[in-house]
Amino acid sequence: MAVPIAILQLGKGTVGTPLIGQIAAQSGVIRERLGIELRYVAIAGRIEVVYRPAGIELSEWPRQLEARKTTSVVDLIDQIARDVAHPKILVDATDAEGMVALHARAMASGFHVVTCNKKPLAGPLADFQRLRAQSRAARRHYLHEVTVGAGLPVIGTLRDLVDSGDQIISIEGCFSGTLNFLCAGLDRERPFSEILTEARDRGYTEPDPREDLSGQDVARKALILAREAGLAVEPQAVALSPFCEVGRDGDVGSFLAAAEEMDGGFARRWREAAGRKARLRYVATVDQGCGAGLREVPADGPMGCLRGAENVFSFSTARYADSPLVVSGPGAGPEVTAAGAFGDILRVARAVACEERGE
Amino acid sequence: MAVPIAILQLGKGTVGTPLIGQIAAQSGVIRERLGIELRYVAIAGRIEVVYRPAGIELSEWPRQLEARKTTSVVDLIDQIARDVAHPKILVDATDAEGMVALHARAMASGFHVVTCNKKPLAGPLADFQRLRAQSRAARRHYLHEVTVGAGLPVIGTLRDLVDSGDQIISIEGCFSGTLNFLCAGLDRERPFSEILTEARDRGYTEPDPREDLSGQDVARKALILAREAGLAVEPQAVALSPFCEVGRDGDVGSFLAAAEEMDGGFARRWREAAGRKARLRYVATVDQGCGAGLREVPADGPMGCLRGAENVFSFSTARYADSPLVVSGPGAGPEVTAAGAFGDILRVARAVACEERGE
Repeated sequence: MAVPIAILQLGKGTVGTPLIGQIAAQSGVIRERLGIELRYVAIAGRIEVVYRPAGIELSEWPRQLEARKTTSVVDLIDQIARDVAHPKILVDATDAEGMVALHARAMASGFHVVTCNKKPLAGPLADFQRLRAQSRAARRHYLHEVTVGAGLPVIGTLRDLVDSGDQIISIEGCFSGTLNFLCAGLDRERPFSEILTEARDRGYTEPDPREDLSGQDVARKALILAREAGLAVEPQAVALSPFCEVGRDGDVGSFLAAAEEMDGGFARRWREAAGRKARLRYVATVDQGCGAGLREVPADGPMGCLRGAENVFSFSTARYADSPLVVSGPGAGPEVTAAGAFGDILRVARAVACEERGE
Repeated sequence: MAVPIAILQLGKGTVGTPLIGQIAAQSGVIRERLGIELRYVAIAGRIEVVYRPAGIELSEWPRQLEARKTTSVVDLIDQIARDVAHPKILVDATDAEGMVALHARAMASGFHVVTCNKKPLAGPLADFQRLRAQSRAARRHYLHEVTVGAGLPVIGTLRDLVDSGDQIISIEGCFSGTLNFLCAGLDRERPFSEILTEARDRGYTEPDPREDLSGQDVARKALILAREAGLAVEPQAVALSPFCEVGRDGDVGSFLAAAEEMDGGFARRWREAAGRKARLRYVATVDQGCGAGLREVPADGPMGCLRGAENVFSFSTARYADSPLVVSGPGAGPEVTAAGAFGDILRVARAVACEERGE
């Protein structure tokens, strides 16, 4: 008999929908291999919800959605906690603000939490510490591999280093696929405005690319890594230099039209770096503090070699002192992000599969 | 109250001793952070053993060793299974042959197994399948991160990819730090015999470097990855071309003395590759089958960029199709290997820490 794990998923958009698809496709294998049945009991969007305490038929879920009026997410958590006795996971596949209290309440109600949403972890330090403390007190997993580097094994690797007593000297790398796409294009002497437009057309940037260029997303990832490494850092303490100075006035169209004015400046900076056999990358660093900015790096190092919309994370530690442990690859995209969340769900499933059952 | 996890460790050598040291140093943090007490109950070498069902005082363990005459490891497993009710882990930090039955028996007796010893996984396919089946049937973790790439996150990454339903297209890389040290030295136009001697002096090679040059160790790692990826491969099916042809006649000294005769041949091959803007690397590949051999790779790719005694693993999958997920760094050494085994122990500890306790 397979042991059921109930899943309540918030968010059915870019990441949530492929995650449901991946779990539906793989549920038979998980049952056979781990003796675990991953059973969606609720899927909630902003205005619609489906709740079936005995399990949702995944081939039909979009047709079963109903207007959410009556059911707040808190009510849903309480209801599932009452209705479902076996292990439970809350998956946060939204990018909503203000989810800290909800995550904490879910753990208090017996849910493990897998979050793709990085906002609860990148806000005030007190929120991060509250989630950590609640996870320990309630003995629930609080997993968020996807919040840095999508499906790449970054958070899990860092957690193993820290928990096994290694000393983190620094974590350094390129944490934004979007910004690295721009850097790699500038390496090939293409005009900045042209690469920026291509990146937007490919869906690599936010609808307003100024959000990417501000470096805020990189700062959030650096902050999460710093906190995982044990540093007590507030968001305003991240030393952030934006990729380039962009005003907030005017709409996206007029910003893109004016981007050509920056082409000359970027071309010159890249030429100067090339003259020193270096490359420019948008580098984030976590050591005593944390920060991010455009920096010259050796052309033949792990950052200089990075091409396209990829990420790289280099961990220098007491044990990896002479040469770092390096993870690189695509750090964004719906399928790999969903797969990263699936990996966290599997960590819970493997734990449940091996529970000591009163032997 | 911290939940105890009992550890029985086989092997107190190159990896076993630093592992005990790391766990001793970190046990307070693990207790505080996970609510788990990692408690060594037995440490067994080939001829000596210490067994304390209530827990060994780790600052004193070498002084407590006694001759092992009476206690076979099987007896020890049975005795611990009788004496210790809480969760238990068998750590195999030996490189002994013939451990398959012992690992299986330990799982049947309630132990999770963490093995640094790759031999049980790289023998006949039936042995590998037996260990897998026993792990499922007994619902015990069977973890072996360290068997490929030491502390680098290789096996765990592959397992997440496979379990989440990704399709492995290929795994490719340099799996031997020793052989890569030779390749990187040849890149810098140093004579083969000189680099080989340096590698041996630094302790990078086996006492008889012909064992490294045969490629057998790389073949074993490729085999383990292939099996983790779901391929049913027997050891003799690995297509292995040695780093160079070495006879087995004569002692190590006369082999090293004669290695100079190979300097010219290696220098020529490397010059020819450089002329094609390529580098030579000892590349292992897992796709439909698995194999290893010296191959030309692009100088600016992840393998061509690899320097010194490092490893690199590139995973190309359905989801990582355009560019691979890549893990690289030092893939050998006592401290990082011990840390990798510690990571596996932590996976068990985190699972136990979050067990559903009759809520």
